[in-house]
Amino acid sequence: MGLLGNFYDPSSVAVIGASKTPGKVGHSLVKNLLNSGYPGRIYPVNPKEKEIEGLKAYPSVLDIPEKVEMAIVAIPAAGVPAVAEECGKKGVENLIVVSAGFKETGKEGLDLEKRLIHTCKHYGIRLLGPNCVGMMDTHTPINASFTKNFPLKGDIAFLSQSGATLIAILDWSLSAGIGFSKMVSLGNKALLSEIDFIAEAAEDPYTRVIACYLEDVVDGERFLKVVREATRKKPVIILKSGTSQAGARAASSHTGALAGSDLAYEIAFRQCGVIRARTMTELFDLAITFSRCPLPAGKRVAIVTNAGGPGIVATDAVEAKALHMARFTKETIEELRAGLPVEAALYNPVDVLGDARGSRYRLALEKILADPNVDSIVFIMCATAMAEPIETAQAVIELHKQYPQKPVLGVFLGGESLAEGARLLTEAGIPCFTFPEPAIEALRGLSTYREYREMPKEDLDLNYPNLDKKTVKAIFYDVLRDKRLVLLGSEAAAVAQAYGISVAPIYLATSPEEAVEIAQKIGYPVVLKVASPKILHKTDLGGVRVGLDLPEKVHKAFIEIMENVYRLLPQAEIYGVEVQKMMPKGIEMIIGMTRDVQFGPLIACGLGGIYVNLIKDVSFRLAHGLTYKEIEAMLAETKAYTLLRGYRGSPPADIPALIEAIGRTARLCLDFPEIVELDINPVFVYPEGLSALDIKITIS
Amino acid sequence: MGLLGNFYDPSSVAVIGASKTPGKVGHSLVKNLLNSGYPGRIYPVNPKEKEIEGLKAYPSVLDIPEKVEMAIVAIPAAGVPAVAEECGKKGVENLIVVSAGFKETGKEGLDLEKRLIHTCKHYGIRLLGPNCVGMMDTHTPINASFTKNFPLKGDIAFLSQSGATLIAILDWSLSAGIGFSKMVSLGNKALLSEIDFIAEAAEDPYTRVIACYLEDVVDGERFLKVVREATRKKPVIILKSGTSQAGARAASSHTGALAGSDLAYEIAFRQCGVIRARTMTELFDLAITFSRCPLPAGKRVAIVTNAGGPGIVATDAVEAKALHMARFTKETIEELRAGLPVEAALYNPVDVLGDARGSRYRLALEKILADPNVDSIVFIMCATAMAEPIETAQAVIELHKQYPQKPVLGVFLGGESLAEGARLLTEAGIPCFTFPEPAIEALRGLSTYREYREMPKEDLDLNYPNLDKKTVKAIFYDVLRDKRLVLLGSEAAAVAQAYGISVAPIYLATSPEEAVEIAQKIGYPVVLKVASPKILHKTDLGGVRVGLDLPEKVHKAFIEIMENVYRLLPQAEIYGVEVQKMMPKGIEMIIGMTRDVQFGPLIACGLGGIYVNLIKDVSFRLAHGLTYKEIEAMLAETKAYTLLRGYRGSPPADIPALIEAIGRTARLCLDFPEIVELDINPVFVYPEGLSALDIKITIS
Repeated sequence: MGLLGNFYDPSSVAVIGASKTPGKVGHSLVKNLLNSGYPGRIYPVNPKEKEIEGLKAYPSVLDIPEKVEMAIVAIPAAGVPAVAEECGKKGVENLIVVSAGFKETGKEGLDLEKRLIHTCKHYGIRLLGPNCVGMMDTHTPINASFTKNFPLKGDIAFLSQSGATLIAILDWSLSAGIGFSKMVSLGNKALLSEIDFIAEAAEDPYTRVIACYLEDVVDGERFLKVVREATRKKPVIILKSGTSQAGARAASSHTGALAGSDLAYEIAFRQCGVIRARTMTELFDLAITFSRCPLPAGKRVAIVTNAGGPGIVATDAVEAKALHMARFTKETIEELRAGLPVEAALYNPVDVLGDARGSRYRLALEKILADPNVDSIVFIMCATAMAEPIETAQAVIELHKQYPQKPVLGVFLGGESLAEGARLLTEAGIPCFTFPEPAIEALRGLSTYREYREMPKEDLDLNYPNLDKKTVKAIFYDVLRDKRLVLLGSEAAAVAQAYGISVAPIYLATSPEEAVEIAQKIGYPVVLKVASPKILHKTDLGGVRVGLDLPEKVHKAFIEIMENVYRLLPQAEIYGVEVQKMMPKGIEMIIGMTRDVQFGPLIACGLGGIYVNLIKDVSFRLAHGLTYKEIEAMLAETKAYTLLRGYRGSPPADIPALIEAIGRTARLCLDFPEIVELDINPVFVYPEGLSALDIKITIS
Repeated sequence: MGLLGNFYDPSSVAVIGASKTPGKVGHSLVKNLLNSGYPGRIYPVNPKEKEIEGLKAYPSVLDIPEKVEMAIVAIPAAGVPAVAEECGKKGVENLIVVSAGFKETGKEGLDLEKRLIHTCKHYGIRLLGPNCVGMMDTHTPINASFTKNFPLKGDIAFLSQSGATLIAILDWSLSAGIGFSKMVSLGNKALLSEIDFIAEAAEDPYTRVIACYLEDVVDGERFLKVVREATRKKPVIILKSGTSQAGARAASSHTGALAGSDLAYEIAFRQCGVIRARTMTELFDLAITFSRCPLPAGKRVAIVTNAGGPGIVATDAVEAKALHMARFTKETIEELRAGLPVEAALYNPVDVLGDARGSRYRLALEKILADPNVDSIVFIMCATAMAEPIETAQAVIELHKQYPQKPVLGVFLGGESLAEGARLLTEAGIPCFTFPEPAIEALRGLSTYREYREMPKEDLDLNYPNLDKKTVKAIFYDVLRDKRLVLLGSEAAAVAQAYGISVAPIYLATSPEEAVEIAQKIGYPVVLKVASPKILHKTDLGGVRVGLDLPEKVHKAFIEIMENVYRLLPQAEIYGVEVQKMMPKGIEMIIGMTRDVQFGPLIACGLGGIYVNLIKDVSFRLAHGLTYKEIEAMLAETKAYTLLRGYRGSPPADIPALIEAIGRTARLCLDFPEIVELDINPVFVYPEGLSALDIKITIS
């Protein structure tokens, strides 16, 4: 029994709101259960009927004499919470609410949904929906939905946050010959969400690949944790819509969901090994390929073609997708030379020429499949006069059995004349495409996933010594007492320091004498900056003085700054002047954090300084589950990394120190969810160590 | 008569190498001419036959008693030049050589090809091929090829540099229901190339859109000139393969063509209005859409759907492709509100809900088509239980007739249940897709092309006053006499100055006294740099001194530089020391040029300075046909543009002066093809004027 208990194979199902009238949802539900060959008992529930589709009907679920393991509800929304209560009393374990009229319709619906959730939680009922199409499992089999059709049997689990999309894909899949292990319409995701179904499918023996259409992820933190584990077991492919600004608007009006920024999704998917499909076509191209192909041992692709053009197109795609063209062994080349016509191209891509019959493809593929330098093969057939699609397909099917560990993908470029050959391939479990590019894209998916799977699991989870939470809390307390949300520079520096981040010493002085005292303590030269939470452009107001190397200068600068600011902004609330030690210049980097609604702290790092928004050389990772290696990878994505490693003869910077500072920043933001924004810009990175100069922290 | 005379509709065709044996190319050619319904006379030529397929055969083309306007040659390569000679004597105007064994096979074949070209040029014969499949025209009709099939009649002209690709696409098109005006297999492009066929198709009344599969462009300069004109008349869509490094290797082994760098192709296509397809699917999605749809007046797309999911997916695609979601007028919203159910989404994307029948689509589409804020419409139908694909298709077809100027594209997401509706749409000339994204991609193509067509034609062509060619020639002459290819800094500066580019004064001094004299003339402070063509890292050797503000310092620095360099590199050939005026700092830009094999000078500009290779903030244009507006657009593509316009309170830089400097650089590189590389880095751009500091020029 899987993580969802008997959700996919209940021994009995009640249909609450069952109907005798064809065309009504309550009728479709009963018919679908019957037609799908569902082996359990079915109980229609309708107080007005005695019998529906030859089954005895009951006035309520409580009147059913036997155990009811699942109930499907199709009555108007207003009545659903009461029915759920009855189900709870009856001991129903699984509830599918297809009725609409909940959260998606506004305040009143939201209240109904909350009551429904409350009842289900109270009784420990698994709830799918509301506002969904239902669920289908081809292996039980059970059609607990009001769709017109039932899917072909297969090993793809498809989860869809859009019911109509699920229906359309089901219709399309029947023509395209694509089978599913289960199809689930997620609806409003009031209790069960994609996270639960992904986790279950990862354990399900009938499922080989998990494909999802999602419009949002509600519990980002749990998603990261659970899906990271699931992808270690099976490929998870997600098409996430609502990526654009306009798209996000549409998503929120459609499902009432607050869509997170696409960047966070992009990073979240990558960090937990999800393969992101860019288009609907890609979602299913990938799903089919994963369902049929083994994972390639490496990135080395061989291409066999009977026409130069598509061979070049495929080669381009291989390079564009960061795969590699395989280099054959000498033996392979010699064998190909011996077997193929003299005009044939022996090097990858192999051109068996336009007059190639099945036997010539067989010869070439046999040698290439055997080559240890080849990890996967794409063979292309153009509909030439000599082409023998059926014989070729048969040869490939036979040969592939000898090398089941190498993915083989077909491209049959043509129409009717190749259709039968393509059908043979598909039936034998070899994906067959019309054009080369999608085949290569699918291979890329396999390869990306293999790499992810092979990455050693790291469980660092940002545990550092010397994290002084008490100091941070004390500073935040003072800031809140002062009715502020933005920390002063000296406060922010103290917070960073409490978390072990090396900062340029900075302290607040309230008098010229105190300023001098601080300068003496931290050492010259120093910078003086007016300390006022409201003043953003301090330099413009004469509120900053740099390079002060003598006590007299510090004393004088303090007075002048105060005068300048009072003259120009007499109303400004001024806390004093901050005295900061001037640090030697290092490589200017930025470390930042913005908090994503779904996924929590999104950590940024990259080239810092005043041009940071212009150059935009910044990369991102989510703090949840961040590891040392991920931080390193994040740095390596920036152009600044070249500087850090030592550019044009300058010495390399202390990258480990920077990685630790980023990790500690992430830890700080995880430990204090009240930090809504954080910027360290610049942080100077030296050949040894680093120094954070200007820190901005906003709390909530 | 088009640009290619009677090439597509000769009154008579001789098949040289005609054969009686089915399966032979020489037999297919005769059969295809007969079967295509070709209305002209056909003369098989074969010395061994009396009659082929009921037609009298002739021993040679010279024996044919009447005029022969076209000859198709299918004899072994070695005999082709002699046959071409006979054709010339006979007055044949058009020659199609399908035989292989020419340039693509090596040296011997190349010689044969050269002889063939020579003969055709001598007699003024239009030559297609060799090594091609032939040509088809559905309107003449004529099938002058050895393909198995003949295309459906249509208005897409398809040109293919790969013969097998053409055959495969033809086969596929018959199943997909796509028609062509003509299909041309370009082969080795010995004389006629894509440029000629594009120019002809642009004038051809039967052709509405030109689609090409290309592996290279041989005459880049002519391509730019001719295709720029063609795209003003008709859309030209090109899939260019061999974009990758590995792909380019395959291309060159396949056709013997030297593939240019992909960047140059990318820029060339953009500059002359070609729509570049990224994949084979896209090539035909675009071709079909252009063949059927009007150009939209703007970028505002309306989406109508019966399911939220695909609506969001389409909205995402609209934003991702830089189109806009239309904002309906108040009237439209009110009318939709009055006509649609209360749960329907009235704002774009419009959700007519899963239970929408044809009538509801009709209502929504009628209002939206009438809305002046809508430029194009994508309507999506998911295969729901209530969907009425046929009625909906009929409604759309009717409504579209009332608004023929607005593109309407269909997305029928489902299988068999929607097939008949999709067929109706396709027949009525409304493109119909299975998934939303390709429909939006096709709309983007229409929109990009419309923008290009609407751009006013600019004929500046970089004509500037005060271009002193004589000075440039004199400097190059001295450099060559000196057995160098790299100019000294002072020489390069003089070249730039001769072309009206403002440079920081720099002169070569051969003695300390001369250095002081130069400094006195150009003004202090100055920089001294050792002048030696072999020394790359001058600073490292102590070969540079900056900020010299007194004659004594200049004198001393000269001596020290010479001593340093002689000590460290006693063998170096040293010309002296260059004295350059130190300029005030401006915005650091780079202007550069690299010469592309196919398309000539490729001009770069962007953020300059020592981090130029790190930041890579550079954009490119080809010098041929470059205009003032294009240079402006090129600058606007860089992040540096933000700096130039005045960043964070700094004054804007003199952008017109920079544009002129870039234009003059392009002019210089066009006028002097011997300049193989040029770098001006940095050029300081000031609020008024600019100054080029460091100029490197390499000639050949």
